[in-house]
Amino acid sequence: MSPTKLTYFNVSGLGEGIRYLLHYGGVDFEDERITKEEFPGWKDKLPLGQLPVLDFEGRTLYQSMSICRFLAKRFHLTGQDEWDTLKCDIAIDTIADIASAITPSADETDEEAKKAKKAAALTKINFLTEKLEEQLANNDGHFVDGQLTWSDLMFAALYPTLLHRAGGEDIFAERPLLKALKAKVDALPAIKAYLDKRPPVPY
Amino acid sequence: MSPTKLTYFNVSGLGEGIRYLLHYGGVDFEDERITKEEFPGWKDKLPLGQLPVLDFEGRTLYQSMSICRFLAKRFHLTGQDEWDTLKCDIAIDTIADIASAITPSADETDEEAKKAKKAAALTKINFLTEKLEEQLANNDGHFVDGQLTWSDLMFAALYPTLLHRAGGEDIFAERPLLKALKAKVDALPAIKAYLDKRPPVPY
Repeated sequence: MSPTKLTYFNVSGLGEGIRYLLHYGGVDFEDERITKEEFPGWKDKLPLGQLPVLDFEGRTLYQSMSICRFLAKRFHLTGQDEWDTLKCDIAIDTIADIASAITPSADETDEEAKKAKKAAALTKINFLTEKLEEQLANNDGHFVDGQLTWSDLMFAALYPTLLHRAGGEDIFAERPLLKALKAKVDALPAIKAYLDKRPPVPY
Repeated sequence: MSPTKLTYFNVSGLGEGIRYLLHYGGVDFEDERITKEEFPGWKDKLPLGQLPVLDFEGRTLYQSMSICRFLAKRFHLTGQDEWDTLKCDIAIDTIADIASAITPSADETDEEAKKAKKAAALTKINFLTEKLEEQLANNDGHFVDGQLTWSDLMFAALYPTLLHRAGGEDIFAERPLLKALKAKVDALPAIKAYLDKRPPVPY
């Protein structure tokens, strides 16, 4: 079997969900972290000119969410039936909505417009995190029916990136169940072992 | 069995993929199309304050991509094995990247900034549609290995919305295989029957 290798930057971002899933699944892999300066040398060799890519069982996997979805199924992290899988996907899509609510304000250069966009994004994020918090309350602290699924892992993996992109706002300050879920996932033995040896990341 | 009902606006947007999939799957459903003026009366009753929602087998499904993914599995439109499903997901994510490449320029109000953002978005879109075109060339005109999957249906359903959001640019002008795929999906008997009786939509 050809070796497994993840290539991405040394940040959480789009790669951390893949790292969490590979560690959870007990996959021995090379966690290659390249610099922004090295990236131009990579770009033309990449299927969509983007990182992350995952070399896995002789194939090059790309599109981060597609990779995560593939690994989640491999490691039986999509729940017991089609309804669980749907609940899981809804949580995943809602977490992605939080990430993209932040983007427009992060990309804005005009200060006044940035302030207005950030306020609008934070209102939306507040609403969405409240809904996720309710989902945890109704499912014994997980997104799906008291079970560990990849939506839990993805939330924990994306947590620092969501905070980073919110530009210093603690968007989870009043969300005790979301914070508890982050702590619970990070305390899983395979995840804890990874986090203990992970190189320092800016976010 | 409780009746199936899709509620959305009278546009393609986030609802058309669901409509294509339900028609493809032979589901008898109410295709409710509300106006923007009616929406405030709905908002507070919706799981995430957003449309579309789908009443299906006694449950209310939300998050449009999660709904589509659920229906795709129901109707066996995710390929033969996990690798096919991955290829399908990669196409789906890439189509979503095209849609979101357009958004920042569509939302910009400053004319100069809008022009620059639109040019950057079109460069990215050109690159991504070229990659999708290659994927069709390598898979007998489908995204996955000569088979019809939900990625084909989603592309066809989203086609007018992508064109609309590109603000008049024919982003598929030099993509004969993508255009042929759109025509092939729309000629499927169940889809053709739907399109023949669909109310006029602005996009």
